[in-house]
Amino acid sequence: MADISTTLPLSRASVLSAHELIRPHVHRTPVLTNTTLSRLASAPRSPDDLKGTRFEGRTTPARPKLRLWFKCENLQRTGAFKVRGAFHALGRLMMEEGWVEGGGKERGVVTHSSGNHAQALALAAREWRTRAHIVMPSVSVPQKMAATGGYGASVYFSGSTSVEREAVADRVVRETGARLVPPYDHPDIMLGQGTLGIELQEQVVELQRGEAVGEEGLDAIIAPCGGGGMLSGVALSAEGTGIRVFGAEPSFQGADDGKRGYETGRRVESVSTLTVADGLRTPVGEWPWKVIYERRLVSGMYSVTEDEIKKAMRLVLERMKLVVEPSACVGLAVALFDEDFRAMVEREGGDRGWDLGVVFSGGNVGVDAIGRLFSE
Amino acid sequence: MADISTTLPLSRASVLSAHELIRPHVHRTPVLTNTTLSRLASAPRSPDDLKGTRFEGRTTPARPKLRLWFKCENLQRTGAFKVRGAFHALGRLMMEEGWVEGGGKERGVVTHSSGNHAQALALAAREWRTRAHIVMPSVSVPQKMAATGGYGASVYFSGSTSVEREAVADRVVRETGARLVPPYDHPDIMLGQGTLGIELQEQVVELQRGEAVGEEGLDAIIAPCGGGGMLSGVALSAEGTGIRVFGAEPSFQGADDGKRGYETGRRVESVSTLTVADGLRTPVGEWPWKVIYERRLVSGMYSVTEDEIKKAMRLVLERMKLVVEPSACVGLAVALFDEDFRAMVEREGGDRGWDLGVVFSGGNVGVDAIGRLFSE
Repeated sequence: MADISTTLPLSRASVLSAHELIRPHVHRTPVLTNTTLSRLASAPRSPDDLKGTRFEGRTTPARPKLRLWFKCENLQRTGAFKVRGAFHALGRLMMEEGWVEGGGKERGVVTHSSGNHAQALALAAREWRTRAHIVMPSVSVPQKMAATGGYGASVYFSGSTSVEREAVADRVVRETGARLVPPYDHPDIMLGQGTLGIELQEQVVELQRGEAVGEEGLDAIIAPCGGGGMLSGVALSAEGTGIRVFGAEPSFQGADDGKRGYETGRRVESVSTLTVADGLRTPVGEWPWKVIYERRLVSGMYSVTEDEIKKAMRLVLERMKLVVEPSACVGLAVALFDEDFRAMVEREGGDRGWDLGVVFSGGNVGVDAIGRLFSE
Repeated sequence: MADISTTLPLSRASVLSAHELIRPHVHRTPVLTNTTLSRLASAPRSPDDLKGTRFEGRTTPARPKLRLWFKCENLQRTGAFKVRGAFHALGRLMMEEGWVEGGGKERGVVTHSSGNHAQALALAAREWRTRAHIVMPSVSVPQKMAATGGYGASVYFSGSTSVEREAVADRVVRETGARLVPPYDHPDIMLGQGTLGIELQEQVVELQRGEAVGEEGLDAIIAPCGGGGMLSGVALSAEGTGIRVFGAEPSFQGADDGKRGYETGRRVESVSTLTVADGLRTPVGEWPWKVIYERRLVSGMYSVTEDEIKKAMRLVLERMKLVVEPSACVGLAVALFDEDFRAMVEREGGDRGWDLGVVFSGGNVGVDAIGRLFSE
C-alpha cells in the first residue's frame, strides 16, 4: 500500500476521487431489478415460515414494502468487487512520491489471500505494469490458483492458517522489497470498494427516471460484511446523502463478529468459522471499524443462518438466472428473512416502503460447489 | 391456434409484424459479450483436446476468429424464448374472425408440454385474459408444475408418452372447446420465436456502433434446434440479410435428427433420446422443416456430445455468471468444439473472422439439477 500519510480523508468526496482514478479499469456493473424477488420481499412471512427460526412465535409478521435494486458485482472483472480496491490501492501507490522512481514497479506488490482479492490484485498489477506476488494456502481451489497465475502473478504456497500465510508474505516482502496490499484493512482499499456505492446511487436514479416511477433514489443499501472494507466504503459513499447503510453477515460459528461488536461497542478481533459464505469468515478490520461503528456510518448490522443464505442463493440462481457466490447473498437473505430488519422497514418506510440497494458482491463459485451446496 | 388460412406468409416481413404484435409483452433481452469466451472460441484446439473426440487425429486444428454475441433469452419472461411464440399465437388467435365474439376467450387454449412452452402459454393466456389448459406428464418436476399453476392455468396430468399426453389434450379440447396451441409446429409460433433474431441483429449493430469497432452487423447466427420452431423463425428473421443461420443439436441417442434429416434430405419423424438438453428431445416439425431444409434458409446443422454441452454450460455459469439450461448451450458448444464448424469459419471468415450470434434459449434449470449434472 501507499504510505498511510498519503491517503485521502475517509469521506464521500474521497470515494468520488477514487472513482475517477479507477473508472477506466473497472466495469460499471449493471443494477438489475426482479419482480419476483421484490414481491417475495414484500410479502409477509407466515407463522409456518417462522417455525424453527429465531423468530418462531412472533404473532404478527412484518409487512415491509421493498423495491430491491441489485448491484451486480458478480459481473465485475474477475467476478467480484475486489478489483475496485485493488486498482485504487495500486493507483495511489503509483502516485506515492518516489515509489515509481525508486524501482517500486519492478519490486511489485504482495498479498496473502485465497480468494477474490488475490485475483483482483493480480489483474490490477498486470494493468499497472507492476509485479504481483500472491501467497495462497496450498489447499486453495485449483480454479482460483489457475486464474491468479493466469494474470501473470507469482504464486507462493503456504499453510492455511493466517499466521502461516503472513509468515510467507513477510518473507516475500523481505526478499523482493514488494509492498504489502492487504485485502480490506486500509483506507485506500475502503475508498476503492466504496465506488460501487456511488454507481449504485447514480444508476438507481437513472433507472427510476427511465421508468418515471416518481421515486427518487434509494432509501437504504445493504451490503455483506467480512473484513468490512467494502461495507465501510459503501457507508462513506452514502455519507450525507440521507441513504442509510446496513451490514449483513452469516451467523454461523460466530461469523457475526461485526454485529456482536456493534452491539457491545467492542470490535471482535478474531473469528473462526466455516460458514458457506467463505468470503465473510474474517473479522472486521481496524480501519473499517472506525467508519462502521465509531462514526456510526452504518446504521445497523444483521445476521442470517446458513439455510437462509442458501435459500437466497437458490432464488437468485433460479429466478434471476444469475450466478452469485454464497457471500453475495447475505444482504438479500436479511431482506427476505430477518423479521427485525423487515419490521424496521415496515415502521420507517410506511406505505411508500423502501427502495433498497442490495450488493451482490461476487459470483465466484464453481458448478461443483453449487452441486455440493444444494445436494445435502 | 388461429386457423392456418389466417397465418402470414413465412418471410422476414412477417417476423417484423410478429415483433410489433408481441413487443409490449416480452423483454428485449440483453445481448452480452464475454472476452474469455470469444478468446477461447478463437484459440485453436490442441491435438490433446481432440483426443477421444470424433475429431481425434486431425493434425491441423481449425483457427477461426470468432467474436461471440450472446442473445440472453434465459433472461426472458418465464426464463425462455417460448413466450414469444405463445404471445404471437394468442395475438393472432384474437385477430381471427369470430373467435372472440364466439366466446373463444372463455373456452381458452390447450397444450401438452412439461417444459417452457407450458409456462409461456399460461403467462400469455393470463395477459390476453383467456384460459389456459395445460397437460403435463405427472412425473414433471414440481417447480414447473407450480410455475404453470401460478400463472392461473388449469393443469391436467397424463402419462409421459406423447400418445398419452395427446389423448388427454384431445379430451380437454372436446370437453372445453379450447383451441390447441402446439409448441413449435405452426407458422404463428415460428414467426413469434423469430422475433429474437430481429432483436439480435439490431442489438449487435447498436453495440458495435457504441464500441466503434468498425464491424457492422453479424456474419452468422447459431441457434438450438429441437422441434425447429425457433431455428426456423430465426432463419426467417435473417432472410435476405446476408446473415447465415446454423442449427445446433445434441448428438446423444439420435437427438441429431435435424442434422441427419438435413444430410439425407428426409425429415426424421420420431426421436427417442434422453439427452441432458431436455428441450431438444423432439424431432423437427413439418412446418419448420420447410424453412430449415426445403427453402435452405438454414445453412447447416451441427451436433455436439453430452460432454461438450456440459463443458459449454460450465463455462457460461462460471465465466459469464449466467444460469443457462443445457439446451441453451448447444450453439456455444458447436462454436467451441466442433472442428467442422470451426474450419468453415476459418475458411469463410478469413483474417477478419466472424461476428457470430449465439442464442441462449433459456435458463430454466434448478440448482439441484445443476448439482446432478456436474457431480458425476
